[in-house]
Amino acid sequence: MFFHIKELQYNAKPDKPDPVYAKKLQEILGGQFGEITVAMQYLFQGWNCRAEKKYRDMLLDIGTEELAHVEMLATMIAQLLDGAPVQHQEEAAQNPIIEAALGGINPQHVIVSGLGATPTDSAGYPWNSRYTIASGNLLADFRANLNAESQGRLQAVRLYESTTDHGVRDMLSFLIARDAMHQNQWMAAIEELEQTQNPVVPSTFPAEMQKQQVAYSFMNFSKGDESKQGRWAAGKSFDGESRFEYIENPEAMGQAPHLNPQPPYIHGTPTQH
Amino acid sequence: MFFHIKELQYNAKPDKPDPVYAKKLQEILGGQFGEITVAMQYLFQGWNCRAEKKYRDMLLDIGTEELAHVEMLATMIAQLLDGAPVQHQEEAAQNPIIEAALGGINPQHVIVSGLGATPTDSAGYPWNSRYTIASGNLLADFRANLNAESQGRLQAVRLYESTTDHGVRDMLSFLIARDAMHQNQWMAAIEELEQTQNPVVPSTFPAEMQKQQVAYSFMNFSKGDESKQGRWAAGKSFDGESRFEYIENPEAMGQAPHLNPQPPYIHGTPTQH
Amino acid sequence: MFFHIKELQYNAKPDKPDPVYAKKLQEILGGQFGEITVAMQYLFQGWNCRAEKKYRDMLLDIGTEELAHVEMLATMIAQLLDGAPVQHQEEAAQNPIIEAALGGINPQHVIVSGLGATPTDSAGYPWNSRYTIASGNLLADFRANLNAESQGRLQAVRLYESTTDHGVRDMLSFLIARDAMHQNQWMAAIEELEQTQNPVVPSTFPAEMQKQQVAYSFMNFSKGDESKQGRWAAGKSFDGESRFEYIENPEAMGQAPHLNPQPPYIHGTPTQH
Amino acid sequence: MFFHIKELQYNAKPDKPDPVYAKKLQEILGGQFGEITVAMQYLFQGWNCRAEKKYRDMLLDIGTEELAHVEMLATMIAQLLDGAPVQHQEEAAQNPIIEAALGGINPQHVIVSGLGATPTDSAGYPWNSRYTIASGNLLADFRANLNAESQGRLQAVRLYESTTDHGVRDMLSFLIARDAMHQNQWMAAIEELEQTQNPVVPSTFPAEMQKQQVAYSFMNFSKGDESKQGRWAAGKSFDGESRFEYIENPEAMGQAPHLNPQPPYIHGTPTQH
Amino acid sequence: MFFHIKELQYNAKPDKPDPVYAKKLQEILGGQFGEITVAMQYLFQGWNCRAEKKYRDMLLDIGTEELAHVEMLATMIAQLLDGAPVQHQEEAAQNPIIEAALGGINPQHVIVSGLGATPTDSAGYPWNSRYTIASGNLLADFRANLNAESQGRLQAVRLYESTTDHGVRDMLSFLIARDAMHQNQWMAAIEELEQTQNPVVPSTFPAEMQKQQVAYSFMNFSKGDESKQGRWAAGKSFDGESRFEYIENPEAMGQAPHLNPQPPYIHGTPTQH
Amino acid sequence: MFFHIKELQYNAKPDKPDPVYAKKLQEILGGQFGEITVAMQYLFQGWNCRAEKKYRDMLLDIGTEELAHVEMLATMIAQLLDGAPVQHQEEAAQNPIIEAALGGINPQHVIVSGLGATPTDSAGYPWNSRYTIASGNLLADFRANLNAESQGRLQAVRLYESTTDHGVRDMLSFLIARDAMHQNQWMAAIEELEQTQNPVVPSTFPAEMQKQQVAYSFMNFSKGDESKQGRWAAGKSFDGESRFEYIENPEAMGQAPHLNPQPPYIHGTPTQH
Repeated sequence: MFFHIKELQYNAKPDKPDPVYAKKLQEILGGQFGEITVAMQYLFQGWNCRAEKKYRDMLLDIGTEELAHVEMLATMIAQLLDGAPVQHQEEAAQNPIIEAALGGINPQHVIVSGLGATPTDSAGYPWNSRYTIASGNLLADFRANLNAESQGRLQAVRLYESTTDHGVRDMLSFLIARDAMHQNQWMAAIEELEQTQNPVVPSTFPAEMQKQQVAYSFMNFSKGDESKQGRWAAGKSFDGESRFEYIENPEAMGQAPHLNPQPPYIHGTPTQH
Repeated sequence: MFFHIKELQYNAKPDKPDPVYAKKLQEILGGQFGEITVAMQYLFQGWNCRAEKKYRDMLLDIGTEELAHVEMLATMIAQLLDGAPVQHQEEAAQNPIIEAALGGINPQHVIVSGLGATPTDSAGYPWNSRYTIASGNLLADFRANLNAESQGRLQAVRLYESTTDHGVRDMLSFLIARDAMHQNQWMAAIEELEQTQNPVVPSTFPAEMQKQQVAYSFMNFSKGDESKQGRWAAGKSFDGESRFEYIENPEAMGQAPHLNPQPPYIHGTPTQH
Repeated sequence: MFFHIKELQYNAKPDKPDPVYAKKLQEILGGQFGEITVAMQYLFQGWNCRAEKKYRDMLLDIGTEELAHVEMLATMIAQLLDGAPVQHQEEAAQNPIIEAALGGINPQHVIVSGLGATPTDSAGYPWNSRYTIASGNLLADFRANLNAESQGRLQAVRLYESTTDHGVRDMLSFLIARDAMHQNQWMAAIEELEQTQNPVVPSTFPAEMQKQQVAYSFMNFSKGDESKQGRWAAGKSFDGESRFEYIENPEAMGQAPHLNPQPPYIHGTPTQH
Repeated sequence: MFFHIKELQYNAKPDKPDPVYAKKLQEILGGQFGEITVAMQYLFQGWNCRAEKKYRDMLLDIGTEELAHVEMLATMIAQLLDGAPVQHQEEAAQNPIIEAALGGINPQHVIVSGLGATPTDSAGYPWNSRYTIASGNLLADFRANLNAESQGRLQAVRLYESTTDHGVRDMLSFLIARDAMHQNQWMAAIEELEQTQNPVVPSTFPAEMQKQQVAYSFMNFSKGDESKQGRWAAGKSFDGESRFEYIENPEAMGQAPHLNPQPPYIHGTPTQH
Repeated sequence: MFFHIKELQYNAKPDKPDPVYAKKLQEILGGQFGEITVAMQYLFQGWNCRAEKKYRDMLLDIGTEELAHVEMLATMIAQLLDGAPVQHQEEAAQNPIIEAALGGINPQHVIVSGLGATPTDSAGYPWNSRYTIASGNLLADFRANLNAESQGRLQAVRLYESTTDHGVRDMLSFLIARDAMHQNQWMAAIEELEQTQNPVVPSTFPAEMQKQQVAYSFMNFSKGDESKQGRWAAGKSFDGESRFEYIENPEAMGQAPHLNPQPPYIHGTPTQH
Repeated sequence: MFFHIKELQYNAKPDKPDPVYAKKLQEILGGQFGEITVAMQYLFQGWNCRAEKKYRDMLLDIGTEELAHVEMLATMIAQLLDGAPVQHQEEAAQNPIIEAALGGINPQHVIVSGLGATPTDSAGYPWNSRYTIASGNLLADFRANLNAESQGRLQAVRLYESTTDHGVRDMLSFLIARDAMHQNQWMAAIEELEQTQNPVVPSTFPAEMQKQQVAYSFMNFSKGDESKQGRWAAGKSFDGESRFEYIENPEAMGQAPHLNPQPPYIHGTPTQH
């Protein structure tokens, strides 16, 4: 169950409206790695959690925090949209260039939401739940989480670079710091899990049941071998079980496929003879 | 540019048709973390790569390999669908239960693709490119890749558990081994990058520009403190810059939001007085 | 079965081309509450109608009218796109600002549809049928319809405010009037149904089978009680069966969830001890 | 900002696992009118609210409650999935009919989420934010909300009819009661707003600016006139401004459309003469 | 403008309910190549048509007919769903296998649409407008139409093979005949256009502006040359302008790509030295 | 299995960056008829091919080539995005019009992909696999392919007209030539198949099982008969089996639908008497 507190987790007050920037800021609200994604991802991981209680609790704590970030961004976007188009509209009567320039606004911020934030990304694409994962295996999922926080902070930083509004930058500096904490947090949680299990997910699948002879080989599927220079091509493997090898000219190990003709009721291509 | 080799990378031959399993196997072909996802993700990361040549080469090598995995799965699925519905259909005339049971098949495998594999997942949902990311920051992206291979191997293992067909299991044991290698590979590549940059992505954003006072705090947004027991709540942070702290009762640091009324041309809620 | 009349239901002639406005106008053609939505929604409600004949007939009458509105908007948009980019293109050679400003156009209006209307919204997002509902319960569905006409007229009015083109405004004044009629119509149809059944949908579910003690309580899930001031917090309930009460501090009535560990074949998080 | 309470709002404990029913129950978790929809819809309406404080507060109260309903359903679904497939799998070795019957399960509940709930509907289709609306006009939006609660309660009742599990029915009887309250609540809120404004949304658009001659006419776009028998075809209109009239044979009032040829750079159909 | 006729274009009466088949039949109603697709595709091609009047008229005639096919299928599906689950439900109390077998039904046919047809395909995926094309070039679009009728008839034939219900087969034999006519029709329309223009679309782009040296070459991007045996590898080209040639070992003609590093404000991968 | 060659199939080097054009060029990379579509469509048709070997080989040859076109476009787009926004950003500080004009850029090219190409179209909409078809009937599918190449070349030509950059035009002239070849190729392959089967797909469904009396009739579903003037309304049909006839006033041949009331457990509209 949840309770709502009327104050925001941190200030969300722009210096002045900027509806073109409002469109961009939607990315970290309703985009692939926006705050709705991490909120939903952590909450579902927590609700479905069958492991130790501390993981469930931690996931729901951070998922609940992310809801507050959605709220901050929605509030900020509504203010960035605040009244702005009116003044453009008046000028636009005399100035066709300004009118055209307004193409930079997401028209749905006016027509559909009436100057409100929307659960969409910066291209106007709606948020959908295939952005999230809760697999029931926490090591896999914490890697998803570390990725989400990495992509999310990267996007927030790019948005920070794209504005000079002090109020917006102040809010972003808060979110960027939280994303840093959350990257640190998932690295900590991952290390904790990797100390008791093999880092290859899932660690519970017996090694002898996989095709071991290809389990440590980097295969070079191109002419040239620049890819040989990386750590992944030589040395001890990260699961500590073997050593990497570099296959310069990988060969096909499988059959040349041959499929049977379709039965007549499928009405495939008629045989030609 | 690409060339195609007629033989498969590894064998894809089921013992016998099983159209219900064919539907399930679609998950790792066209699902969120299926082979199309990793193929497209690695290829776009490679094509967009502006870093050292070895990364581009490595990404295109592995992306090219994933295309071969798509091919193996498509070939396997076509054979699992092979002719099977005919025999069911005949029996079904006498046996309504079998007819109903055929609901376990994806009807599009008959009606739309005529016993062919489709670029969709096990729920029949089409693959879409929002499953992928190529951000231009390789540390962020390698974390996405490590997650994708972790989720992908987990799903392949669950599919292995769901069949007793030796041919299918043989192919899966190959894919499971390659997913193990690819997890090892991304761990290696991540370590290599983390040795020259701070592990918090993006490492190039100056620490003093984020709100440092909240950059190392775990915030407990619930009653009870099981979440205090984790590595993320105490000790040195993973970027080596500070120490984690646990905030038992986080407080709101922001304003209670107040939005201005809409301008008249938006036709919002009329003011009531 | 349908017949087509070559004349439009009402005039759709702009004073002059305006491709930036064409993009915006797409919202009420192919958007969430655009004319395709109401056409499809009413037709499916009519085709699936198992109630009295007058409802089926009425639904198909209005669904058929909405097809005419789709046609008017498509015709208008094609004319707003008419030839316009050519002149911009010529100027653009000398004037980079104009070229950039053309970003306000949906590029697909040129590249994909060749100056034709598209079944998409003002963000270029394709129409999809999850915008519609036909539930088999007419009171529920007429509420969906009243909402669709309310949102649709609101959007049409905002688009009216966004142009000074007399031809466009003339067409919109027609559509706005029809949306007013259709709101009136659904209010009438809803009243008719509510006179013979309880207004709570579905009225056929026995009251004693729902948890009556929470069926009339407004629960205050936040600090502060501004929400107490509304009609929903006190007085007779709208189904006439009870009185609203305001729960200032709602308490959890359920268990603290505990899930069993996954069986081994799921390869969830390994237990750590 | 939000806080989480570890206990559920109401009990969510099934008598026994039932993975086929788990798939169905997803509809009111992640479907078009499921709990994610109303949670997100009310929260965004609240965050974007520019009207009196009591509306914002009320919207955030109920949006916060809906998050608790998402939590209850996720918890219930995880338990319905609990361990069940194991026993089927063992039997399935001997009994091909049972194996086929398992087609009734959503395969992603095993392969992707590892016996966890997913943010999808009963067809496995992911939730997306185009299910929601926050228009900035509360009368319009409260109608959307009344519809959502009507459809949602209807679906919950149908799910109640589809099971005999006492634990599931107990939880549903709670949700059904809350949906009844929420229908009552939105009816109350709608009445409150309609007392100070014309019920036709938006009430602020001057009547004389719409095409008045078609603003009260029901148009019969079919042969036969069963549609004449409804309240919508005669009597006072619901905005109190006029009377309904029934147009038996509506005529086209617009032009026969003629579009100009495309400019050459569009490469449309070449003119044929 | 449109008018509706209460009678169906052709009979749609099943012998008896069959809800599992109802799910399958949805494919040609709301699938990629279902009747909604062709209705919308032809109507938009007609409304956007800037060529001779006969094409616009023909497109709107056939688009209007396709609406009647949507209606027939919706009516059929509603009847196939008719009451059926009740009888299963009663049996299901005693027989868990039947209950499980009901997984073959689309659960949304009960929960969401209350035994009504839905605008979705046989996997429950909603129809969306990206299934359609109206490009403004009729030769291109008529090829899209010929394809749609070919895929559509193929699917209808497969559905015919999947049932023994005489009523369903009677309706399908009508739709299959109309799809045959429509294939004939588009072949006729294509021939007409190809008589006055080069068959390569768009015919208005000057041949000398394309890279002529690769405009007639089949390139063999694999080991082995079975692909050499086709008509496409030798002989006169179909535009009559040249002859096909077979390139056994195509070589790269382009650069090895090199991208510049990102500017600092993008925060790409830091350079490592 | 595939191999990658580091050089591009043809040069992809723009004269200078142009991020607004980069957004447009995405259409033929990740749009409905872009290179990802044809690559995936041909590869799946090839992998699922159950007909003669030469078709499989040919399909995989051309599918493999299309991967090289995806690569060329991705490389070109990355360079068009190259560094450009920096210079705008600096000017933008002084010039608000330029800042607004930047709305012409897809913001995700900066925020999400960091100046990289994305697998989306020119409206920012992600690629999805419902753009493709592999039906198991090659005549149907080759028509899909001919359409895809026709739409694709049309779009490439429109993009050619939209730029004056010599490098971009050079690359497009290559792609336009290949699209011309591929149209020629599919026309050749279609002719080859039509020589051994009836051109109406599927040719294997017995003519007497379709409703022959409507299999050659053009039905005029509108007032006026411009549609009578086409080749489709008179003369020999294209399958050579009959002659076209023109039905000036088509009549309904089916029932006026009547649906039974829903069973009580569906909770449809209560009967009103």
